[in-house]
Amino acid sequence: MLARILPRLDPGDSALLGAGDDAAVVAAPDGRYVVTTDLMVHGPDFRLAWSRPHDLGWKAAATNLTDVAAMGARPTALVVSIAAPPTTRVDLLEGIADGLRDALVALAPGAGVVGGDLSASSVLMIAVTAFGDLEGRAPVLRSGARPGDVLAHAGARGDAARGLALLFAQARDGSGEPDAALADDVRARHPHLVGAQLAPEPPVAAGVLAATAGATAMLDVSDGLARDARRLAEASGVGLAFRRDALGDDPMTALAGAEDHGLLAAFPPGTVPPRPFEVIGVVDGHAGRLTLDGEPVDTSGWDPYTGWDGGAG
Amino acid sequence: MLARILPRLDPGDSALLGAGDDAAVVAAPDGRYVVTTDLMVHGPDFRLAWSRPHDLGWKAAATNLTDVAAMGARPTALVVSIAAPPTTRVDLLEGIADGLRDALVALAPGAGVVGGDLSASSVLMIAVTAFGDLEGRAPVLRSGARPGDVLAHAGARGDAARGLALLFAQARDGSGEPDAALADDVRARHPHLVGAQLAPEPPVAAGVLAATAGATAMLDVSDGLARDARRLAEASGVGLAFRRDALGDDPMTALAGAEDHGLLAAFPPGTVPPRPFEVIGVVDGHAGRLTLDGEPVDTSGWDPYTGWDGGAG
Repeated sequence: MLARILPRLDPGDSALLGAGDDAAVVAAPDGRYVVTTDLMVHGPDFRLAWSRPHDLGWKAAATNLTDVAAMGARPTALVVSIAAPPTTRVDLLEGIADGLRDALVALAPGAGVVGGDLSASSVLMIAVTAFGDLEGRAPVLRSGARPGDVLAHAGARGDAARGLALLFAQARDGSGEPDAALADDVRARHPHLVGAQLAPEPPVAAGVLAATAGATAMLDVSDGLARDARRLAEASGVGLAFRRDALGDDPMTALAGAEDHGLLAAFPPGTVPPRPFEVIGVVDGHAGRLTLDGEPVDTSGWDPYTGWDGGAG
Repeated sequence: MLARILPRLDPGDSALLGAGDDAAVVAAPDGRYVVTTDLMVHGPDFRLAWSRPHDLGWKAAATNLTDVAAMGARPTALVVSIAAPPTTRVDLLEGIADGLRDALVALAPGAGVVGGDLSASSVLMIAVTAFGDLEGRAPVLRSGARPGDVLAHAGARGDAARGLALLFAQARDGSGEPDAALADDVRARHPHLVGAQLAPEPPVAAGVLAATAGATAMLDVSDGLARDARRLAEASGVGLAFRRDALGDDPMTALAGAEDHGLLAAFPPGTVPPRPFEVIGVVDGHAGRLTLDGEPVDTSGWDPYTGWDGGAG
């Protein structure tokens, strides 16, 4: 089965030795490498009735690449472990491999897959570990924002949550279970929003742009802009003041919606953040406080998966 | 839950930035790093009735560290992703963390855990990605053995399979299911063999010793000495001639038994392999052929898990 999958994957420009031995060897030109890992499990993280195999590979790559980008690093390589039921068709695994490959080409050209593992499991699971090159720069941490900094964001704001809401509302059968034909129909009518949920296109290249523009802090927005902003605020000991007019027609979804995998960054006062970053507010001195046009933002009770049976489907 | 686990883990000497941001940063002093990844899934790879949580963390670390060692590299760091049922007790996860930590201290001092992820799943699963430092040396591949080389092995030969056979024979209940009390009893009577299966102690430090002694080829012996030897023979285009007197009282189990995680290496003619390596034969020119005292070795039909229901237990 690995023989069908590995030829679909390119080891990339940083692989000194790709898959096939006990381990791979990857270049780290500046003597350091960035590493992050993320799991996707059938049920809590995706449904096969909604996500095509290509979507799964794409999203597994995209989410990990964004974590690398959020350090200000250029993604170089992935390793991928897949646990799948013994009855899994090889074309599902091939679809996952094609999704990984296409996401790398689109989001991180030059990065590749340098290794992996395949195991039997009753539950389909994809574990990706991603690597990046800081190219001599310091990593951009969550903790470096200072009062007066410009607060900027790159990527979608709420679209992945809007897509998930559409799937919940319109792609479940009479008993509430995810339905593939209904999902295809919703996706045909709302390709942008459903695509943002199932196969997001995060602004991976913007990570390096932010770092070279002097970003003082940055993080990947995976749990919603407000929740992740709070992490940056707490790590930096600052407050964050959002501007409502920067958040579009539906600022609450922009703040609360998860899984967009955008980048939130702070830049020194007076910086014009590089595109695709857009200014959405300012850093202030009220440690740990988030505001929207001066009003407190409370996201403590927000959970889009409440009532969702992660074990079924 | 992560707050209970992370303090139990040391990021190690190579971590420039440990867990807590979007990604970690690890040192790669010679501008390269070795990377390998391996999954352990409840059912096919372990049973909770037999393995204690500490065993699981230990084995997940040990198997990955051996893959790093098999390249001739010094292990530096791990990232660990765990998928566990929502009902999992935190002390099980703490036990896994303690096993990871203790295996690192025992097998790869200075290496640490620099990151991880925790997800919900109906099946317990541990995915480890391990990193290593080649310290300026070339990686030791499977493909470098040459006729006349000394064939040597470090580590257990068959003990893990003997331990698994004891568990199969004596630690299953009346309906054939793994039983924790019976496993404790077997382990008390056969601590070495059952320990070799559940918490192996592979010769991780021997990887660097082999590389510095000039090993021409090396690999991790995880699927049985004969099966993995065949991989080395095919990659190198050579034959391997084992000596029966070097394989102990039970040479067939020594050749066929899986999961010992020893190291098989070839050294230039005349080399005295460094301890704990022991000479077990010689490399010859019969491409792809394995022999034992001149007789062909056939392991094509050997599978210790035949008839084993990987989905239950």
